[in-house]
Amino acid sequence: MLILMNLNAPRQDVEDIKNKIKSHNCQAHEIPGEINLAIGITGPSELLYEDDFRLMKSVVDVVRVSKKYKLVSRQMKNNDTIINTKYGKIGGKELTIIAGPCSVENRDQIFRIAEILKNAGVKFLRGGAYKPRSSPYAFRGLKEEGLKLLDEVKKEFELGIVTEVLSPDTIHLVEEVADIIQIGARNMQNFILLDEVGKTKTPILLKRGLSATVEDLLLSAEYIMAQGNFDVILCERGIRTFETATRNTLDLNAVPVIKKNTHLPILVDPSHGIGIRDKVQPMALAGVAAGADGLIIEVHHDPDNALSDGSQSLTPEQFQKLYDKLKSLAPIVDKELL
Amino acid sequence: MLILMNLNAPRQDVEDIKNKIKSHNCQAHEIPGEINLAIGITGPSELLYEDDFRLMKSVVDVVRVSKKYKLVSRQMKNNDTIINTKYGKIGGKELTIIAGPCSVENRDQIFRIAEILKNAGVKFLRGGAYKPRSSPYAFRGLKEEGLKLLDEVKKEFELGIVTEVLSPDTIHLVEEVADIIQIGARNMQNFILLDEVGKTKTPILLKRGLSATVEDLLLSAEYIMAQGNFDVILCERGIRTFETATRNTLDLNAVPVIKKNTHLPILVDPSHGIGIRDKVQPMALAGVAAGADGLIIEVHHDPDNALSDGSQSLTPEQFQKLYDKLKSLAPIVDKELL
Amino acid sequence: MLILMNLNAPRQDVEDIKNKIKSHNCQAHEIPGEINLAIGITGPSELLYEDDFRLMKSVVDVVRVSKKYKLVSRQMKNNDTIINTKYGKIGGKELTIIAGPCSVENRDQIFRIAEILKNAGVKFLRGGAYKPRSSPYAFRGLKEEGLKLLDEVKKEFELGIVTEVLSPDTIHLVEEVADIIQIGARNMQNFILLDEVGKTKTPILLKRGLSATVEDLLLSAEYIMAQGNFDVILCERGIRTFETATRNTLDLNAVPVIKKNTHLPILVDPSHGIGIRDKVQPMALAGVAAGADGLIIEVHHDPDNALSDGSQSLTPEQFQKLYDKLKSLAPIVDKELL
Amino acid sequence: MLILMNLNAPRQDVEDIKNKIKSHNCQAHEIPGEINLAIGITGPSELLYEDDFRLMKSVVDVVRVSKKYKLVSRQMKNNDTIINTKYGKIGGKELTIIAGPCSVENRDQIFRIAEILKNAGVKFLRGGAYKPRSSPYAFRGLKEEGLKLLDEVKKEFELGIVTEVLSPDTIHLVEEVADIIQIGARNMQNFILLDEVGKTKTPILLKRGLSATVEDLLLSAEYIMAQGNFDVILCERGIRTFETATRNTLDLNAVPVIKKNTHLPILVDPSHGIGIRDKVQPMALAGVAAGADGLIIEVHHDPDNALSDGSQSLTPEQFQKLYDKLKSLAPIVDKELL
Repeated sequence: MLILMNLNAPRQDVEDIKNKIKSHNCQAHEIPGEINLAIGITGPSELLYEDDFRLMKSVVDVVRVSKKYKLVSRQMKNNDTIINTKYGKIGGKELTIIAGPCSVENRDQIFRIAEILKNAGVKFLRGGAYKPRSSPYAFRGLKEEGLKLLDEVKKEFELGIVTEVLSPDTIHLVEEVADIIQIGARNMQNFILLDEVGKTKTPILLKRGLSATVEDLLLSAEYIMAQGNFDVILCERGIRTFETATRNTLDLNAVPVIKKNTHLPILVDPSHGIGIRDKVQPMALAGVAAGADGLIIEVHHDPDNALSDGSQSLTPEQFQKLYDKLKSLAPIVDKELL
Repeated sequence: MLILMNLNAPRQDVEDIKNKIKSHNCQAHEIPGEINLAIGITGPSELLYEDDFRLMKSVVDVVRVSKKYKLVSRQMKNNDTIINTKYGKIGGKELTIIAGPCSVENRDQIFRIAEILKNAGVKFLRGGAYKPRSSPYAFRGLKEEGLKLLDEVKKEFELGIVTEVLSPDTIHLVEEVADIIQIGARNMQNFILLDEVGKTKTPILLKRGLSATVEDLLLSAEYIMAQGNFDVILCERGIRTFETATRNTLDLNAVPVIKKNTHLPILVDPSHGIGIRDKVQPMALAGVAAGADGLIIEVHHDPDNALSDGSQSLTPEQFQKLYDKLKSLAPIVDKELL
Repeated sequence: MLILMNLNAPRQDVEDIKNKIKSHNCQAHEIPGEINLAIGITGPSELLYEDDFRLMKSVVDVVRVSKKYKLVSRQMKNNDTIINTKYGKIGGKELTIIAGPCSVENRDQIFRIAEILKNAGVKFLRGGAYKPRSSPYAFRGLKEEGLKLLDEVKKEFELGIVTEVLSPDTIHLVEEVADIIQIGARNMQNFILLDEVGKTKTPILLKRGLSATVEDLLLSAEYIMAQGNFDVILCERGIRTFETATRNTLDLNAVPVIKKNTHLPILVDPSHGIGIRDKVQPMALAGVAAGADGLIIEVHHDPDNALSDGSQSLTPEQFQKLYDKLKSLAPIVDKELL
Repeated sequence: MLILMNLNAPRQDVEDIKNKIKSHNCQAHEIPGEINLAIGITGPSELLYEDDFRLMKSVVDVVRVSKKYKLVSRQMKNNDTIINTKYGKIGGKELTIIAGPCSVENRDQIFRIAEILKNAGVKFLRGGAYKPRSSPYAFRGLKEEGLKLLDEVKKEFELGIVTEVLSPDTIHLVEEVADIIQIGARNMQNFILLDEVGKTKTPILLKRGLSATVEDLLLSAEYIMAQGNFDVILCERGIRTFETATRNTLDLNAVPVIKKNTHLPILVDPSHGIGIRDKVQPMALAGVAAGADGLIIEVHHDPDNALSDGSQSLTPEQFQKLYDKLKSLAPIVDKELL
């Protein structure tokens, strides 16, 4: 961090700044310039907040040089993180496809969809047992019953399970079934939950919040890693903008930005990202073209009667068509879809 | 809800729509027009999702007529909700001022600030014991120790306590001390937490999320009320926009919109809303002029050395000056600051 | 349009609404329902504004059913518009690549870049003679001198010229040289300029404004077409959101939305869209994968010394690499890059 | 500006940076630190673009220290600009109220409204003769006929006239009638138009664009001032955000930010800002409470039949009520409404 002060700042103002820096166990270095006196800071400056200095006397500006995150950053670890699960890798050359319904609705539904996806070549099944819904009156998932069905379907079809956890007290239940635990967009800054999943040994799929910057997302990943769980998979799923023609604005710009700043893998969720079934395929292809390590897609054998998110779920036929196109696309961006 | 279909839609498409409506225990009414066939819906249509119909065959558009929320709405209850606490009312003619530091830091700090505020005439003290922070390395509050200090200061100065809860398992601790429990912006859609505070009997201060529409905020209030706790106080604290000159964009437009749509009281938090100390006063006055029922403001006796949010906290002198102006402003907008 | 009124609305209120509708040469139709009385409107209702009815007595809601635009819409003309120029087609199977520097800087620069692009197979050269700049002190283009250089380079290399016009009084000059006239993002709602280019016979490349919805963009295209010029090419070039990690947020979601709503071709500008050179390639590929009819890309032989936009211009080597990848990608999305 | 480089950057990279700086007539100063080598820049650095350096070799970050604008800045001129017109002052202690219809519709309409406003004490009448409309089929103003009516009404009632100009070729017509020329939000970055009004001697009311940052707005004011016209009045009129409950999001945060950064006066337009009649009054009061120098408000004697913007225009009775409240509010924020 660099604090820019007036060149003619009273000595006391400069000392106040330096004392504040030292009280955080950092070192202060005066660097006189032509326009400003700069105070350079070394040491554990990720604990310092720019805003805490901005209104101090004689301060002109405060400039953060280093990032607030460490463990997630490419400077800390240059080579791509590849996450190994029993059912496949995430990251590296592998193009990962996670597919399935929004919610587990009943035994017949989840078994039918799982069979279709298994036959298509998919390795990971998504399906919600605990569902966050903006209205208290909407279907909120089968809960424990849903987890049981996911466990059965996993054994039957040998598919890795990706499912969401909503609160610390159900982590132990979800963990028994899930190969990848999902943190949803609305919980991206539920820091208590991040702490707790950080203590598990299961890979975490962390979805970007609707109004989270890329930096916010990386800081939330840092929370999980700071507790010892280094298997974090990021996921872009659309941000909130002024545009109302689509449910959200899938921000594919985030993909190359994330690839540059962190070693963690990044998936794209085109189903939530654009939110309209007939536009999911182009955005899925675009996500992979932008450099994503894979996709998480909603597929339902009967979307018109789905209990949630039917309007953005692909039919099995649409999914198969997309999957075939992805196979052709993968090598153009140096990926493999096996 | 109204579903608009092609006038020449095949009979089967119309029947599919009507069957779907009936399967949700609603009634379907065909209303032929000149351009479209409209299907009107009566019954508990808050359980229906527009998007579930939008991609069905022959559908041109889907229009929600009624709101998704009920208990929070002015149609349900026309007169303003006034929340009574031992320390003062919130809502109605009363202009409520909640003030205090971002975090409880130590005994000396919280006692000094409490004394200043009590003398100024303030009835409610804010102060965080559990702090959500975007970086895992930042100060996250004194936790139980902080609650204990809040309890002491409350007894000493007879101030109502407003403090945040972050997770269901600490609600019982917070509840013992808090006169008003705060749900922070990042937890506005932590639905598990909303359910749980909805089961308490303590008034809830629900802050608007950074990317939450007014409708999202009201739906989150509905969550709390659906569990039986009707004492919900809404709070506008800034949304995220493209503007970077301010930390957030305090959206005062929300105040008259909320006043029209719900009977619940609405406060404004200018400290987080604009995020820069020397601009808090104009936004505080603007919030009251826009029709808010009160303010929640950060005040610190030594903001340059605050452990969090120092740059947006008012000094005691600045607060006193603002308080005096608020006394003159209140009657212009039919409020009283006693 | 549909106006929803209270079922028990006084007769006078209903008549007021109907009279207002008739005064705009439209017909009003009463459609009584169970919850509301709906007033359906037929006739030239694109002249009616929802907002003009919203505050009238007994009105509950106003719902626009038909779009405000006509000539641009797929309902008006179902098959894709293909624009023929002497140098190539835009739309249909063709994947169009327009490349070149931000500004024409001097004879040597524009000739060197044109030669590189011609050799790569590019058919259209972009280059600004009149430059809109947010600061009055920045380089604002060579103006007439720039147009002269574009004319020379066009004759030498047989490349179609795409260049921007800023005001009505220079249209006749630009028109002499340009094969496609560009309307920049900041002028997307400069309606006087839209009227005037609508009177020319040259194809218009219309860029989406930073805060324009897709509907706004289509309405601006409607302006041009309403004057008789039907050769309009749309261009997505990034919108303004809260994210600061990229210069703009290239909104690729707009591509499938636009493809569904209009018959006009749509290009993507990844250079302005993301604004950082090393991230242009992934976004260019993503744009084509999302279904765009082509790209407009900034290329400079010496970007570090470009007079404008150097940081987002590709080097010739980077462009060649991208061009090769586009050739492989095109057939996957049913396009040809010849 | 400050360029941060790797401490171990090759000498050639450092020299490349320094040469580029010198080629813009600025001086480069090496400031070695512990983490980075900083290159400080002195001289006319407002001509340098951060982005031009960001991708050069060994560059870690680029930091703008000084602002891009000069003439508008408080550093250039510390005391508030007060603009004198024949009909009243704008800026300083004066609270300026500009009121009137969106469009001049006919002689009877503009005379009736002018009389009402004159009697209320208003000094400036707004009314559009040239109207920018997002649809080409909407009413676009009476044009020259409208200007003539404004001239008549001005002589009859001695009211200052505020009216919009849309293109350079009608400036001379508008200038004959207008006491203040308005540049609308959609033309805020129509740089050709800014240049031209900068050459007049009439005060300019410059409205903030829908997606313009405060810095963009100030740069557009700089355009006008750079041509010699120093009488620029800024106007906040709402930005575009994700919130759809209001037409725009009136950003009152901009008021204190603008007050700090520039000496120019700032008005607030609550009519366009929130866009719904019954919410204009609270936002008007809030604008003044936030520190604005005045308001520009739409008033119509028969809003239900207005040809444009009827839904956001106040009735004469609503305006009078607001005006009375403004008289009480003014002294609280050190203003006078005479």
